[in-house]
Amino acid sequence: MDESVKKIVIHPHVPSQTTELFVGRHLLSKELLSAARFVIVVDQKLKDLYGDALAHCLRADLIAIPSGEKAKSKQVLDYLLEELFQLKVGKDTVLVALGGGAVCDLVGFAASIYMRGIAHVLVPTTLLAMVDAAIGGKTGIDMPFGKNLIGTIYPPKAIIADVETLSSLPETEWINGLAEIIKIGLIYDADICDDIEPFTKNPALVLKAMQAKIAIVQQDPLDRSLRRMLNFGHTIGHGLEAVADYQIPHGRAVAIGCLAESHLSWQLGYLSMQDFLKIQALFHRFSLQLPKGYTPQALLHAMSYDKKKSLGKLRFVLIDQIGRALPFDGAYCRNVDHEELKSTLDWMEEQYG
Amino acid sequence: MDESVKKIVIHPHVPSQTTELFVGRHLLSKELLSAARFVIVVDQKLKDLYGDALAHCLRADLIAIPSGEKAKSKQVLDYLLEELFQLKVGKDTVLVALGGGAVCDLVGFAASIYMRGIAHVLVPTTLLAMVDAAIGGKTGIDMPFGKNLIGTIYPPKAIIADVETLSSLPETEWINGLAEIIKIGLIYDADICDDIEPFTKNPALVLKAMQAKIAIVQQDPLDRSLRRMLNFGHTIGHGLEAVADYQIPHGRAVAIGCLAESHLSWQLGYLSMQDFLKIQALFHRFSLQLPKGYTPQALLHAMSYDKKKSLGKLRFVLIDQIGRALPFDGAYCRNVDHEELKSTLDWMEEQYG
Repeated sequence: MDESVKKIVIHPHVPSQTTELFVGRHLLSKELLSAARFVIVVDQKLKDLYGDALAHCLRADLIAIPSGEKAKSKQVLDYLLEELFQLKVGKDTVLVALGGGAVCDLVGFAASIYMRGIAHVLVPTTLLAMVDAAIGGKTGIDMPFGKNLIGTIYPPKAIIADVETLSSLPETEWINGLAEIIKIGLIYDADICDDIEPFTKNPALVLKAMQAKIAIVQQDPLDRSLRRMLNFGHTIGHGLEAVADYQIPHGRAVAIGCLAESHLSWQLGYLSMQDFLKIQALFHRFSLQLPKGYTPQALLHAMSYDKKKSLGKLRFVLIDQIGRALPFDGAYCRNVDHEELKSTLDWMEEQYG
Repeated sequence: MDESVKKIVIHPHVPSQTTELFVGRHLLSKELLSAARFVIVVDQKLKDLYGDALAHCLRADLIAIPSGEKAKSKQVLDYLLEELFQLKVGKDTVLVALGGGAVCDLVGFAASIYMRGIAHVLVPTTLLAMVDAAIGGKTGIDMPFGKNLIGTIYPPKAIIADVETLSSLPETEWINGLAEIIKIGLIYDADICDDIEPFTKNPALVLKAMQAKIAIVQQDPLDRSLRRMLNFGHTIGHGLEAVADYQIPHGRAVAIGCLAESHLSWQLGYLSMQDFLKIQALFHRFSLQLPKGYTPQALLHAMSYDKKKSLGKLRFVLIDQIGRALPFDGAYCRNVDHEELKSTLDWMEEQYG
């Protein structure tokens, strides 16, 4: 193994299966993988930049799909599955996802259901995909009636995070990924939050965030307790995305969500005002604004479809200090009724409306 | 636990998850399950017969879907997923499949992908579903371009096999299930084949076949070696179904498939002529006829999409005596080239064309 490549082995829930994570530079031209056959699924915008070279390196077929969140649609899934069938892809083939979180989620899902499961490898090319979508095996597509409501938990055979691909990322994409990094810091690793200020496309921080997410996921691969803390900021974040009809970047929705759920943690008496103000400062580089169409009622309605809901009650992940989510008897979320939410919703409107 | 109910605990691949199998009579009105909420998905033909009573017993919502293989279509899957969403089904809900193999396969698949996996229970009401579809966690739907090509391996929380439901089954449905029972006997348990002759809707034989399949599946839940022996008769069987455009009962296709693959086992020098003739006798109650449109070429083309195929070669499960599939270095299937297949394909046409 080349010294410039860091390799970490992740142990998901299926004992016979492990995920190899490679982090380093210029990894797309290195021979890190072996299989009878590879098929690469690439964001069409990245085909020329990385796709053709990787296809050459792996002697792979290449399937280009639409860019962005559109990739996670039923239409693209159907197209991809039929392409795989037409290419006579069998159980000995490894699918490779090359692109952002949407491509990773789509390809993971396709791999998990094609012929009842074939192997796949994720090659995330955005900060958000590296620290979030690629880690933990969650896959999914969006349905006309709800985002990410259809999916599986299906760990990849390998993840290749080439930090070199981040150098060409636009600033807005950085900010997008940064929201998830801050979130991981807030719930699990205060050090990460300390490192945020001087953040200037620092690969060490990327690795640190990936490792924190891996540590959480390995303790609860099937999302039954500890792992739920990763939903911090996402009950409100997902609700805002639905209110905005998904015309708001995920990172910005999560940023507002993290702030609002920190406010809620303070309101309910768990978090100190001092920590809350520190958290607000962490997000100073974000342009936080509630989406058009936002009302507390619209948000409450959107949140009523939240996946964490139990017996009709909304549930929130809460923190009691920077770097620590509250366990609540091991469930890592707590019922919050509308009355308890009210002042946080009002505060959101006042601050960011 | 009532003495008339036999309970077996199955251990699938996910350590934290087990399947409870209940076998007995009049189980649909017994309180065997507990959950925050149940939603029953029922074959519309069984709604009056069993659906309403079970819904009452479980205080469940009821979703009726089309009968037969149509249930396993993308259209019905989309309908079901949207109904679940509209009913605000959350992670605390258990889906219950009530019907034949198609309903079990569809509901298992829907449960495996809805919100990245919710729990489900199978209540098979046909012989084929009890001994085959319900055991082993395979789920799936048919796509316009291929049957069962999309699916997951996702074990149910419980299986309830009420043998009383079999008493109303038509004779053709019995024969359908019998083919899979004989198959299990041929590859794994010669005793089952000995019990076939006096077979007259014998619940003890149903349980024996279920137990044999459970024993196989538990040794290889993810279908990587031993479990593949269950594909005996299915390389040709699936091919025949495709040639017949799925207008042939699965049991009949599997019956011809088992006979033909026994013939192949003999041709290749593994199986004795004496055993082959015994196997032929086992199928004397089946009306075996090749589907319209059958030609060796059409079958070879259809088989070229087989899921077991590796590096472009067709692979077959083979037996060397009644009750024993050949291991072939633990792969439980062997490459067979077109030349080796020829005399078996000719024999099929001669006998059943």
